[in-house]
Amino acid sequence: MKISFRSVGKTNEAYVNDGISDFTKRIGRYFPVEWKFYPVPKNSQHLPTEGQKKKEAEMILSTIHPDDFLVVLDENGKQFNSVALAKFLQARANESRKQVIFLIGGAFGVADAVLQRADFTWSLSKLVFPHQLVRLILAEQVYRACTILNNEKYHHE
Amino acid sequence: MKISFRSVGKTNEAYVNDGISDFTKRIGRYFPVEWKFYPVPKNSQHLPTEGQKKKEAEMILSTIHPDDFLVVLDENGKQFNSVALAKFLQARANESRKQVIFLIGGAFGVADAVLQRADFTWSLSKLVFPHQLVRLILAEQVYRACTILNNEKYHHE
Repeated sequence: MKISFRSVGKTNEAYVNDGISDFTKRIGRYFPVEWKFYPVPKNSQHLPTEGQKKKEAEMILSTIHPDDFLVVLDENGKQFNSVALAKFLQARANESRKQVIFLIGGAFGVADAVLQRADFTWSLSKLVFPHQLVRLILAEQVYRACTILNNEKYHHE
Repeated sequence: MKISFRSVGKTNEAYVNDGISDFTKRIGRYFPVEWKFYPVPKNSQHLPTEGQKKKEAEMILSTIHPDDFLVVLDENGKQFNSVALAKFLQARANESRKQVIFLIGGAFGVADAVLQRADFTWSLSKLVFPHQLVRLILAEQVYRACTILNNEKYHHE
């Protein structure tokens, strides 16, 4: 099962890049893993928020296959604890999923069309984080989940 | 009102240090701000968890003044959203508090004695984060709260 992290916007800023690279490498011991960045659609900065989200949604949805398991990070989603995230990943592997996608939307969140395609909508916290920091938190949590599934020492309650 | 971030253990690791430094500097535009690190008590690695927490608690409590407002970060605390955090800070300023302390405990959380002294116990998320990452999240959220209080552009819902 491959893990695909996807995010709209610039590649990683320096202040999170070392951490993201490190945790992503570590995830690679357990699952094939990648990061894909969707560019902010051209000239969309001048569109109203909904128009911008719609353009992003078209681009995103064109790259999602019907059998991908799509997790969208959204503040209105359901919260997990770290053990529940581990169980969630295990359940996807048990279903023989080929790919789990974790998608971080653009600056204004994701369009309804993307939320409708989502197999699961996940909220990291009630707090709003910058997208760069969400990437780091996401990579760390997925790495943590891998160590939980393998009974390794990294996580303790 | 001064904001004092406190954490048990090593100073910042490279992977979070740039972000913490940057957000802390930015907070400094709104409030006097500092980071204080409590060393892990000597030889405590060989103590059982409760003994280690007790030693840490003695050290921490000896540095807290009666009129400090102590916020302890703990996974069993109450969650805020970012706007509520801003209101919380404003309420402390309105009370003319001299200092608000945000305390991140040691590897095994904080002892009951510290939780009893706490004026507020705050949970960032249901997820467990490494302490280094908690520092970065905390600095970013307090900076975000400052921008919310000043109607600046950084935060949008």
